[in-house]
Amino acid sequence: MNKINQVAIVGGTHGNEFSGIYLLKKWQQSPQLLARENLAIKTVFANPKGFEQNKRYLDCDLNRQFTMQDLANHDLANYEQSRAKAINAQLGPKGNAKTDFIIDLHNTTSNMGPTLILLQSDDFNKKMGAYVLSKMPEAVVVFEDQVSMEEHYFLASIAPQGVIVEIGPQPQSVIRQDVLDWMETMTQTILDFITLYNNNELPELPSSYEAYNYVESLTLPLDEQGERIGMVHKNVQDNDFKPLTKGDPLFTLFNGEVITYQGDYEAYPHFINEAAYYDNNLAMSLGQKITITL
Amino acid sequence: MNKINQVAIVGGTHGNEFSGIYLLKKWQQSPQLLARENLAIKTVFANPKGFEQNKRYLDCDLNRQFTMQDLANHDLANYEQSRAKAINAQLGPKGNAKTDFIIDLHNTTSNMGPTLILLQSDDFNKKMGAYVLSKMPEAVVVFEDQVSMEEHYFLASIAPQGVIVEIGPQPQSVIRQDVLDWMETMTQTILDFITLYNNNELPELPSSYEAYNYVESLTLPLDEQGERIGMVHKNVQDNDFKPLTKGDPLFTLFNGEVITYQGDYEAYPHFINEAAYYDNNLAMSLGQKITITL
Repeated sequence: MNKINQVAIVGGTHGNEFSGIYLLKKWQQSPQLLARENLAIKTVFANPKGFEQNKRYLDCDLNRQFTMQDLANHDLANYEQSRAKAINAQLGPKGNAKTDFIIDLHNTTSNMGPTLILLQSDDFNKKMGAYVLSKMPEAVVVFEDQVSMEEHYFLASIAPQGVIVEIGPQPQSVIRQDVLDWMETMTQTILDFITLYNNNELPELPSSYEAYNYVESLTLPLDEQGERIGMVHKNVQDNDFKPLTKGDPLFTLFNGEVITYQGDYEAYPHFINEAAYYDNNLAMSLGQKITITL
Repeated sequence: MNKINQVAIVGGTHGNEFSGIYLLKKWQQSPQLLARENLAIKTVFANPKGFEQNKRYLDCDLNRQFTMQDLANHDLANYEQSRAKAINAQLGPKGNAKTDFIIDLHNTTSNMGPTLILLQSDDFNKKMGAYVLSKMPEAVVVFEDQVSMEEHYFLASIAPQGVIVEIGPQPQSVIRQDVLDWMETMTQTILDFITLYNNNELPELPSSYEAYNYVESLTLPLDEQGERIGMVHKNVQDNDFKPLTKGDPLFTLFNGEVITYQGDYEAYPHFINEAAYYDNNLAMSLGQKITITL
């Protein structure tokens, strides 16, 4: 892999996830906080109209607009689809990008703590996970590497390397200090890692560590008209990355009935009861625990 | 005080506070859950357009539109101002209402647990607070009785008696089971209390109990342009109803500086970092601890 020189830190991809937006303001006022030897670091406020209107998005989810196909489709012209093309022109173009590495800053209402979402499982990303865990033992590493960067629809997939920093729990449209501090620390740790990787100066890392990969999403209980008839069971609420096994309570219907987990694998739920996912009636993501070896 | 016969339970006064909205659906399907001897109970979905658009409100906060003066001002004609007049026609009119008692169901993103907000400190309300605490020891009672019912701008002030059931923490646009269960239990407990009060069958209640009253609201740290330059200090976050004394950390500025509490009384913060209050840059409410004697 080539050295990383051009880095973009993106905040406000979702307009009501405040931590990244306020960190960008802070770093724009104090750019020395980000400065690293041989790194050119740019900050990008991805969805300013969303923030202005205090909404995740105006027309559609910006962080789902970055497949090669959609970026090339000029009929996709609403606000977020246009922002996607503008950001691709600024940081990309995807496939031949002027940016080497993107950090996209997000919040979740779920109790996920400081989570690093890696989009590829190459040596660089696997080492980044190990390095971040060594500096932030409370962090969690999730691999969403089921498709290639080309096929990914995330903003961070514009560059050859990109990650999502996902910190919660934080209600939409709020700034919590604990969440802001975690996001700042994780971002700084990633920049440190890049510098050390570039210079071949990484410290010794453990030969293996535990992480999670994404498997599937679960839908909230719905009736035939598509109306919600239940909610996440209270035993599952806030228990992101705690295992679920067959027969465990999963949902409570409003009539009191309990629906249990019927999957045939030990599942690690995350994004549990994320507010934004109600748009698509998603209740949570399920992952599996994996061991990453370096 | 006359007996209470006509009761209204109102949900969705704020369109993104989901617990009341989903409880109304449940009770409309199973009205026997609310049925009480000699009580006629009506349910009202106050801001359906807000829910449809997944927002607290379209034009202005519905729960601030119910002073006598504003209800009589026909120039106030936006969506929520019109809803206020429609609800006043349905449940009121304020000053000569066909409804004896209103329960208005709300959520907060703050860690307030199950909170009962009483708008008057007469015998009826003081006993209700004692009764609810006897059945729900985890509950908190707050008196917002600084003005008369006539002067109150809350929806619950249409009737001669009315309360706000305020349950958190819950992000906007989410249903948490623990919060839903608390709201349902508190509502049922209030209905039980009314029946017992009507029939002169109240059990023996403690001669006194601790509650809080509202004193003032604190603004987030702002610069001269009105931009937010800080946030609630992490020691205060989630510590609703825990005392603040002079010199305690209160806010952290984004530049790292800590602002301390400088009030000259022991303050009990609540609605700490409530998402909806960012519209007005409010950081929290402060109250004092009071002893209620029966």
